[in-house]
Amino acid sequence: MPLSPQLRDKILAAVDAGFDEQIAYTQKLVSFASQRGQEFAIQDFIQRDYAARGLKIDRFDMDEAALTAHEGGAPFSPQHSRAPIVVGIHHPKQETGRSLILQHHLDVVPIGPRDMWQHDPYGGQIDGDWMYGRGAGDMKAGAAANVFALQALKAIGLQPAATVYVQSVVEEESTGNGALQTYLRGYTADAALIPEPMDEELTRANVGVLWFTVEVRGFPTHVREMGAGTNAIDAAHRVIASLRDIENRWNAEAAAHPETAGVDHPINMNIGMIEGGDWGSSVPAWCRFQVRISIYAGQNAQAKYAEIRDHIAGFARGDRFLNQNPPVLTQNGFNAEGYVLAPGSDAEALLGQAHETAFGTPLKTSFSGAYLDARVYALYNRIPVLNYGPKSRAGHGFDEAVSLSSVRKVTKAMALFIADWCGTEAV
Amino acid sequence: MPLSPQLRDKILAAVDAGFDEQIAYTQKLVSFASQRGQEFAIQDFIQRDYAARGLKIDRFDMDEAALTAHEGGAPFSPQHSRAPIVVGIHHPKQETGRSLILQHHLDVVPIGPRDMWQHDPYGGQIDGDWMYGRGAGDMKAGAAANVFALQALKAIGLQPAATVYVQSVVEEESTGNGALQTYLRGYTADAALIPEPMDEELTRANVGVLWFTVEVRGFPTHVREMGAGTNAIDAAHRVIASLRDIENRWNAEAAAHPETAGVDHPINMNIGMIEGGDWGSSVPAWCRFQVRISIYAGQNAQAKYAEIRDHIAGFARGDRFLNQNPPVLTQNGFNAEGYVLAPGSDAEALLGQAHETAFGTPLKTSFSGAYLDARVYALYNRIPVLNYGPKSRAGHGFDEAVSLSSVRKVTKAMALFIADWCGTEAV
Repeated sequence: MPLSPQLRDKILAAVDAGFDEQIAYTQKLVSFASQRGQEFAIQDFIQRDYAARGLKIDRFDMDEAALTAHEGGAPFSPQHSRAPIVVGIHHPKQETGRSLILQHHLDVVPIGPRDMWQHDPYGGQIDGDWMYGRGAGDMKAGAAANVFALQALKAIGLQPAATVYVQSVVEEESTGNGALQTYLRGYTADAALIPEPMDEELTRANVGVLWFTVEVRGFPTHVREMGAGTNAIDAAHRVIASLRDIENRWNAEAAAHPETAGVDHPINMNIGMIEGGDWGSSVPAWCRFQVRISIYAGQNAQAKYAEIRDHIAGFARGDRFLNQNPPVLTQNGFNAEGYVLAPGSDAEALLGQAHETAFGTPLKTSFSGAYLDARVYALYNRIPVLNYGPKSRAGHGFDEAVSLSSVRKVTKAMALFIADWCGTEAV
Repeated sequence: MPLSPQLRDKILAAVDAGFDEQIAYTQKLVSFASQRGQEFAIQDFIQRDYAARGLKIDRFDMDEAALTAHEGGAPFSPQHSRAPIVVGIHHPKQETGRSLILQHHLDVVPIGPRDMWQHDPYGGQIDGDWMYGRGAGDMKAGAAANVFALQALKAIGLQPAATVYVQSVVEEESTGNGALQTYLRGYTADAALIPEPMDEELTRANVGVLWFTVEVRGFPTHVREMGAGTNAIDAAHRVIASLRDIENRWNAEAAAHPETAGVDHPINMNIGMIEGGDWGSSVPAWCRFQVRISIYAGQNAQAKYAEIRDHIAGFARGDRFLNQNPPVLTQNGFNAEGYVLAPGSDAEALLGQAHETAFGTPLKTSFSGAYLDARVYALYNRIPVLNYGPKSRAGHGFDEAVSLSSVRKVTKAMALFIADWCGTEAV
């Protein structure tokens, strides 16, 4: 049932009225340097905040045994976060509407060299329409929007007429185990909404992602006898080139994956980190690098990882040095399949109406080449999942920023959607 | 004046008689994990040992200002050792012979991954003719030989009839500043002998060596937008390939450097270390690598370094990414010219006789593709420098080892040489 024009206008006005507070709240979230494994303080802040807002709290740890036994779970490396997951629960007086999960993640990626930032990476500085900071877009603005969309209803004396779970997770940037743990804990609903920074578009499909390390070892010598030694850094480069062959082959298969239609290079492989060697004048004995590669939605993560392992093993057999020193692959993160949001759901239709009200333009959908926690809801909860959020720039880069005018409109669309999807009742 | 057959035989027998003690002393030196910056304990051991052996002690620090003002001095990086230099001084009763410097270095390179060693890297284990351990060959066996060559004379009631400086230095593996500091301190003599592990040959010439780092920076993005980002690890690989062009060009000039005649690949460039990137799913913003490259004897280190800088700057101008983000080169170690030992010196002739007595075969000379502290004595002291020592294997590698039968004969040759060069007097 569409919202009445009066209610709609009151909701829009309430988001506007609360927006200064929402900005301050976003800045507060940005002020936490919540890198992987360092999300304890921000999750504790979230827990106290949600409790103060009247949400019931369920806080729990990620369960390594259960996660790694699940087909979508990722291995726990030594860097895996031990921070808790926090779920804030709203129960209505009467369950008359459709239930909803509002999810966000609060882990952020490293800032890189500090001197390449013009703005304080944790300052939340505002310059014109943009708020700067690591995680400002990805996705602390979305985390704040989850709270302030609900807050807008409350400000006009309303609350959702259905159960709403506000799920604050971690490990989105490395494994997706945080979101998966909420599923394993039993949380589900009639739909889920995740305000990732999607340029005001709804994600129609994304990729799966694999993370693994490759280690090459060789026998070092004094550099004066370099011909006799084997250079692990050079050998690693040969393995990287061989991995590029996989990336090229997979991109050449794009036509078989209609969800990527119009996308130039849907599969990206990234050598995100490299380290090797101990001494300038010793031929390096070892080199390790970190690989992130995507796979098409619908492809099985373990099957594609096996394909990579086989490819590298075959390459190594034909390489005089690697033949004696086969590279060692170790999966150390994402083991995730991609998903497709089937068109035609009520949830998508209602979000479309809400978006058009807030923006005055139709909701577009797009393909994402990134891992998204939405895969958990699509693949395992099997519910409509709306991955939709504000404009941002330089995600994972320097001077990451989010557009505040975009956040305002997205929050309006979210509040309208919640009111429509869940229905409302008096507080 | 040649040694009498009687004295010669007594010296040879004295080395044999002391050899068990010499082995134990070598094992003691190997037991110190005297990596760069961690040579305090071993130098303190040396100081106490030399004092107990009746040598006068001069202990002093490396002087950054003086070293870096000298044309052969290397920059002090944060990793530069602060351990002291120890000189043990023998003064004869009568200065009738020719004075001598006996030098060694006690810094060792890292061991690399421990699990690639079959033997304890600091155990000094003996298996057949070989003693194993990091530094066993390079050059703790030589350091022990310096002591036990003198000890052999003492055991038969003799000592050199000239001043002998036993110079125990550090920083040989990274800058050569330790040896240079002994020169700046004023130490010199009529000749110098350095028992590096040279396979029982005398070094006729070696290379100069440069150490520098290259840092490439780029703008990272989320890997989903990889085309928009610039990958510093990939860019670093392009710079490495460009540096290989220099290496090839310099090797092609070998014919103009007769001291390298017969050497297949006299100039070696080694990428000894690499590191880059902060996150698997971020396009890496930075990559640093460590370069070691050699130059021909007679070439000016700073001029060749400038040639490298110019080459890289030219390459970067033609690279769409590096053009905007020029690689930054930083010299962080060796700034050393190579040397040639002019044939025909008395010192070489006497060492040749001593070697033939100890080994029964003529002394061969050879070219070394490595940095050698001998360059200080050749280039700045301007004295004959005899770089000559035992057989070893896997220098800078796993299971580094030195041949004990070779050490024994080399020590005999050294003791004979000292007796002949310095003359002897009763203790």
